[in-house]
Amino acid sequence: MIKIGTVGFGYWGPNIVRNFNMPGRSSVIAVSDLDPAQRARAAEQFPGIETTARAEDLFENPAIDAVAIVTPVRSHFVLAEAALLAGKHVLVEKPMTETSEQAERLIELADRHHRVLMVDHTFIYTPAVQRMRELVQSGELGKIYYYDSLRINLGLFQHDVNVLWDLAVHDLAILDFVLDARPLAVSAIGVSHIPGSPENVAYLSLFLPGDTIAHVNVNWLAPVKVRQTLIGGSRKMIIFDELQPSEKLKIYDRGVTQNDKPETLYQTLINYRMGDMWAPNIPYREALNMEAEHFLACIEGRERPLTDGAMGLRVVRILELATKSMRQNGQPFPFPGA
Amino acid sequence: MIKIGTVGFGYWGPNIVRNFNMPGRSSVIAVSDLDPAQRARAAEQFPGIETTARAEDLFENPAIDAVAIVTPVRSHFVLAEAALLAGKHVLVEKPMTETSEQAERLIELADRHHRVLMVDHTFIYTPAVQRMRELVQSGELGKIYYYDSLRINLGLFQHDVNVLWDLAVHDLAILDFVLDARPLAVSAIGVSHIPGSPENVAYLSLFLPGDTIAHVNVNWLAPVKVRQTLIGGSRKMIIFDELQPSEKLKIYDRGVTQNDKPETLYQTLINYRMGDMWAPNIPYREALNMEAEHFLACIEGRERPLTDGAMGLRVVRILELATKSMRQNGQPFPFPGA
Amino acid sequence: MIKIGTVGFGYWGPNIVRNFNMPGRSSVIAVSDLDPAQRARAAEQFPGIETTARAEDLFENPAIDAVAIVTPVRSHFVLAEAALLAGKHVLVEKPMTETSEQAERLIELADRHHRVLMVDHTFIYTPAVQRMRELVQSGELGKIYYYDSLRINLGLFQHDVNVLWDLAVHDLAILDFVLDARPLAVSAIGVSHIPGSPENVAYLSLFLPGDTIAHVNVNWLAPVKVRQTLIGGSRKMIIFDELQPSEKLKIYDRGVTQNDKPETLYQTLINYRMGDMWAPNIPYREALNMEAEHFLACIEGRERPLTDGAMGLRVVRILELATKSMRQNGQPFPFPGA
Amino acid sequence: MIKIGTVGFGYWGPNIVRNFNMPGRSSVIAVSDLDPAQRARAAEQFPGIETTARAEDLFENPAIDAVAIVTPVRSHFVLAEAALLAGKHVLVEKPMTETSEQAERLIELADRHHRVLMVDHTFIYTPAVQRMRELVQSGELGKIYYYDSLRINLGLFQHDVNVLWDLAVHDLAILDFVLDARPLAVSAIGVSHIPGSPENVAYLSLFLPGDTIAHVNVNWLAPVKVRQTLIGGSRKMIIFDELQPSEKLKIYDRGVTQNDKPETLYQTLINYRMGDMWAPNIPYREALNMEAEHFLACIEGRERPLTDGAMGLRVVRILELATKSMRQNGQPFPFPGA
Repeated sequence: MIKIGTVGFGYWGPNIVRNFNMPGRSSVIAVSDLDPAQRARAAEQFPGIETTARAEDLFENPAIDAVAIVTPVRSHFVLAEAALLAGKHVLVEKPMTETSEQAERLIELADRHHRVLMVDHTFIYTPAVQRMRELVQSGELGKIYYYDSLRINLGLFQHDVNVLWDLAVHDLAILDFVLDARPLAVSAIGVSHIPGSPENVAYLSLFLPGDTIAHVNVNWLAPVKVRQTLIGGSRKMIIFDELQPSEKLKIYDRGVTQNDKPETLYQTLINYRMGDMWAPNIPYREALNMEAEHFLACIEGRERPLTDGAMGLRVVRILELATKSMRQNGQPFPFPGA
Repeated sequence: MIKIGTVGFGYWGPNIVRNFNMPGRSSVIAVSDLDPAQRARAAEQFPGIETTARAEDLFENPAIDAVAIVTPVRSHFVLAEAALLAGKHVLVEKPMTETSEQAERLIELADRHHRVLMVDHTFIYTPAVQRMRELVQSGELGKIYYYDSLRINLGLFQHDVNVLWDLAVHDLAILDFVLDARPLAVSAIGVSHIPGSPENVAYLSLFLPGDTIAHVNVNWLAPVKVRQTLIGGSRKMIIFDELQPSEKLKIYDRGVTQNDKPETLYQTLINYRMGDMWAPNIPYREALNMEAEHFLACIEGRERPLTDGAMGLRVVRILELATKSMRQNGQPFPFPGA
Repeated sequence: MIKIGTVGFGYWGPNIVRNFNMPGRSSVIAVSDLDPAQRARAAEQFPGIETTARAEDLFENPAIDAVAIVTPVRSHFVLAEAALLAGKHVLVEKPMTETSEQAERLIELADRHHRVLMVDHTFIYTPAVQRMRELVQSGELGKIYYYDSLRINLGLFQHDVNVLWDLAVHDLAILDFVLDARPLAVSAIGVSHIPGSPENVAYLSLFLPGDTIAHVNVNWLAPVKVRQTLIGGSRKMIIFDELQPSEKLKIYDRGVTQNDKPETLYQTLINYRMGDMWAPNIPYREALNMEAEHFLACIEGRERPLTDGAMGLRVVRILELATKSMRQNGQPFPFPGA
Repeated sequence: MIKIGTVGFGYWGPNIVRNFNMPGRSSVIAVSDLDPAQRARAAEQFPGIETTARAEDLFENPAIDAVAIVTPVRSHFVLAEAALLAGKHVLVEKPMTETSEQAERLIELADRHHRVLMVDHTFIYTPAVQRMRELVQSGELGKIYYYDSLRINLGLFQHDVNVLWDLAVHDLAILDFVLDARPLAVSAIGVSHIPGSPENVAYLSLFLPGDTIAHVNVNWLAPVKVRQTLIGGSRKMIIFDELQPSEKLKIYDRGVTQNDKPETLYQTLINYRMGDMWAPNIPYREALNMEAEHFLACIEGRERPLTDGAMGLRVVRILELATKSMRQNGQPFPFPGA
C-alpha cells in the first residue's frame, strides 16, 4: 500500500486524489492547501483525509511515500525540491518548472536520492495519443512531414504564464512522445491584447530533423473551442480531434507520389493518392487512472516513467526558448544539444 | 458594348469568357492560347469566338478594348505590359506578377496611359468577404486583435511557385480589403518535402499596427480540405468557413472584459463574455460576375477598382518578403513604407 | 429543512441524492436498494446516510417528508402508491407508471392526501427546452407545422420496455411542455430484431390539432448517437441538437410565403424566405438541480409542478396507445378526451 | 452513332443533352419544349441543335433512335406512349408515370415493340449507391434490419405531386436496387400546411420480408437541407450522407450480440460490439454520364437496364399506395404480389 500526499486542491487536485485512492494499492492520506475553503472541500469529499495548510507537513510525514504537486507552476520547483530532499517520490503538475535550470536541479536530486520524478503530462496516457505513437513508430505513416496543431478557446487567462505555457505545453509533450524527435531550433510569434497580461495568441514552430516541421497555434481569445491536430506522413496522415465523442482519430491513406520520368514537359511530376479513411474504435479509459497506475509501478521499480524529468525538462526548455523567440519577433533559437 | 480578349484558356479562362459575355454590355470576341487543344475547346464552347496562338493578335486588334490575362504567373508581366502599351485595359490573374518591380512598372504604365489595371482577386467580390469588411469597418467587431486562417488541402502542387503564392495569396487580398491595414513586418516559415519542389507547407505571420497579428497556415499535403478564417475583435468575433453550403459566416458576441478594480488578489482580472451567435443569410451571387461588372464600370470611369494595381502590388510585396523570410527560417522583414 | 428518502441507487440515484443535498434546504437522509453492493456504494459516497434493503423503512420513517422513486418502471406504481399512502410527497422516475390506470390512481391518491406528485421528466428543466417553450408560446415561431425528432443510438436494450418507453418518452414530455397541445390520435410502427426482445426500432406519429404533426424516430440499433429535433413554424424554425457542446439551439428565420395573385399560370404560388440563423447563448445549469429546487418549492406550496401527475399520465397514455398501434401495424388510435 | 431527341429543356434537360453528346457514340440532334425561351436557350447552348415546340416532330423524325422525356410527371405517359408507338427507345424521367396502370401499359408497349424502356433514377448510377449494393448483396452487412432515410429541405413545392413523389421517390429506387427486396405492405402519414397544396411533410414506412423495416422522412418545409440514410445490419451498419464532399459513405463495425446463457437473472442478454469505422474512398464520376452510357449499351443489346420499366413500376406502385395510405391516416396497404 503506497501512501500519497497531495499538495494543492484546486481544479485538478480532486481528480488526483480520486485516482490515487485505489483500494489495496494506494491511498491519499493527506492534502495540503493554503486556502481554508479548499481544505474544507477536501475534508468533505474525502472523509477521513488529513488536511493542512503546510505542505511541509506532508514532506515531514514518514508515513507518506510520494507526493503529488498540483499547484501553480511558480511553486513547482520549491515544493518538488523539498519533497525530494525529504525522500519522497514526486509527481509534479505540468509544466514541470518555470526554468530549465530548476528542472535540471530536480532531475539531479531525484537521481541522487533514487526517487521517481514524474511529470503529469496526462495526454500521454490517453488511448488516442498512445495509438498515434504506435502508428508513427511502426512506420505506418511513413516519413513524418509535419505536425500541425490548433488549440484554441475563450480563456482562461493565466496571470503568470503566457498561452504557450498553458496550451502549447500539451502539444510539446505529445510531439516528444509520438515522434520521439528532438527539435533543432525553436521559433515563436505572439501578441498580448490585454495590457499587463502575458501573450494570449501565439504561434510556435519547431524545426525537427529530416525537414519535419511542427507548428502549434494557441489562442485564449477564440470564439469557439478547437482541439485539432494533423500529422502528415509520406504514407498516411492522421487527424486527431479530441473533442469528438467518437472517431477522435481518423487515418487517411492519402498523399502524393512522384513521377520520376515525366514523358512531356507539361506532364505533372506529382500524382495524388486518394485512399480510404479509417477511424479505429478506441475504447475509453480515464487517462489519469492509467497514469496513476504507471506512477505506482515506477515507484515499485517495475517501469520507467514515460513522462520523466528529462521529458519534462525538454518541454520546459522549448517553452523557454519559444518565449525568448516571441519577445524577438520569431528569431529562431537552436535547441541545446541538437 | 465593351469588347474583351482573353489570353489563356486553361482552368479559369472559360469562367472569364462566360462572365464577360453580357448581352448588350460586353463580349469576349477573341481568345489566345498556346495549346491547340485549348483553342479547339474555346471554339467549341463559344461558337463564333476568334482563336489564336498569339496573344499579340489580341493586343493588335483595334476592336478589343480590354484584355483578361489568365495565364501562369510567370507570364503575367510580359503580357500585361504589352497589353497596356497597346492601350488596352487589363484584368490580370492573381498574383499580379512575379516581383514587386514588375508590379510597379505595370502600375506606372497604366497611370501613364490612363488605362484600368485590375487584379483578379476574386474573393474580394464574394458577398461573404464584403460582409466581413462591413462588419470590421463599421466597428461592430471593435478593435481587431487577430486574423487567423487555415487554408489546406491535398495538392495541387505548382511547379514554379511555392504554397504561399498559391494559397496565402487569397488571405493577403482578404486581409488588405477587410482590415484596410498595411503590415509593419512579415515573417514566414516553410518546408518542402518533395525534392526539387517549392515549399508545400508554410506559416505566414504579419505584424500589423496596434498589436494586430495575422497568421496564415497553408499546406498542399493535408488529408482534407479546410478553409477556415477567424477574425477576433474586442467586441465580436467571426468564423468564416467558405466550404459550408450555408452559414459561411458566423458572428459571435463573445470576448473578455477587464476588471479594473479587483477586490482581492485572488480575484481574476478578466471576465468572459459569452453571448449569442448569429449567422446572417448571405444570398448567393457569383463573385466573378460581380467582378466582371465592376471591371466594366471602371473602364467606363464610373468606379475605382477595389483590386487595383496598388493592391496587387502590396500582395506581391508581402509574398516576396515572406518567401525571403522563409528561406531564412522566419527572419522578419519590415514592410516598405510601414 | 426538507428530508428526503431515495428508493433505488442504480445509475440515476446518486445524481438524485447529490442534487437534493442542499445545505440548509433539503437533505437525503436514507437510501433503499435491494442490492447490497449498491447500498455499500451509497454509504461510501454519502457518509452518514442511512441505507436499507426495504423501501418500506423510508415510507415508515416519520422524519422523511418526501421520497424519490428511482427504480425500473415496473415497480413505480407499487412504490409510489405506498409512499403516498404513507403521506409522503413523491418524485417518481419517468415513465410514471406501466399503465394509465396506475397513473390515474396515483394522481387520485396524491390529490386526496394533498401531497405533491411529480414525475422526473428532467428534460423539461433544461435551459434549452425552456427556451424552446418561450419561443413557441410567445408566437415567435408562428403557427406550429411539425415537431420532428431523431433519437437514436446503440443500446441500451431494456428487458421489460420497448424503445418507445425508453427514448420516445423524452420527446413526449418535451412536446407536451413546449407545444402545450394534446394529440388527437396516435400511431406507431416498430420492429424487434432480437428474438424475445421488445421492439428496438420504432416510429411514432401524433396527430395534433390544427394540422400539426409530431413524429419521433427512435432506434436502439444505430451506429451513432443522434439527438436532433426540428420544430417547424410558419414564421421561424428551430433545430435542437442536445449533443452540441454549444449552439444547442439554432433558430432559422426561414419559411414560405404564399403568393395570392400569381400573374401567370406558370408563376409559382409559393415564395421562399431565407433569413438569418441565430443561436442564443444558453448558460449551462444542471437540469436536475433546477428540478430538485422546483420539487421543494412545490412541497412548500409556492409552485405547481411543471411535470405533475397529469402530465406523467398523458405521456403514459400516449406510450400505451403507441404500443397498441405498433402491434397493429400503425393503426391510429384516438387520444381519449381529444 | 445513336441519335437522340430530348423532350423538355427545363432544369434537367440541359444535363441530359450534355451527357448524350458523346463524340462518335451518340448525339442529341433535336430538342422540343413548349416554352420559346427554353428553345432559345437550347439553341444558344448547343449550336446546330434542332428545336421545336412539338414533341411529335421528334417521334416522327426517322433519324432519331431514342428519346429522353424530361418533362413534369403528368405528361410522361402520353409522351412515352407516343414515342414507343413510333418505334423509339425511351428514357423517361422519374417517377415513371402518374399511375401504375400507365406504367404497365408502357412496359407492355416496349416489350411488344422490342424497345428499351428505362427510367431516369439517376441515384442508381452513383458510385456510392453502387457500393452500398455491393456491401449489402455480398453479405458484409449481415441480415438487414432497417433502412432509415431523412431527406428534407426548404422547397421546392410542386404543384401537382406531393412530397413523396418528389423526394421519397429517390429512396424507393435506392431501396429497390440496394436491398433487392419487395415490400409486403406500405404505410404513410403526411400533412399539408399550405391550403390547396399537396402534402409537404410525409413519413413513409415499408414492411419488408424478414422483419426488415424501411422508413423515409421527407419534408419541404425544413430549415436546412439533410440527405442522410442509415442501413442497419446484423454485422455492420452504413451511414450515407450524400452532401458530404468526401466520406459520403461510412461503414461501422458495430452491433449487438446475444448472450445465450446468461449466468444470472440480472446479467444482460445483449452485448454491444463497438468496432472501427471505415470510409472507402469513392472516386467521383458523374452519375448521368454512367447512366447515358448504360442506356446506349442497352439499345445496342449489350446490357439490361438496371432501372427498367419494371423497377419504375414498382416505385410508382409504392407511391400510389403510400398516397392512399396517407389519406387514411397511415392505414397499411399490402403490396400486390407480396
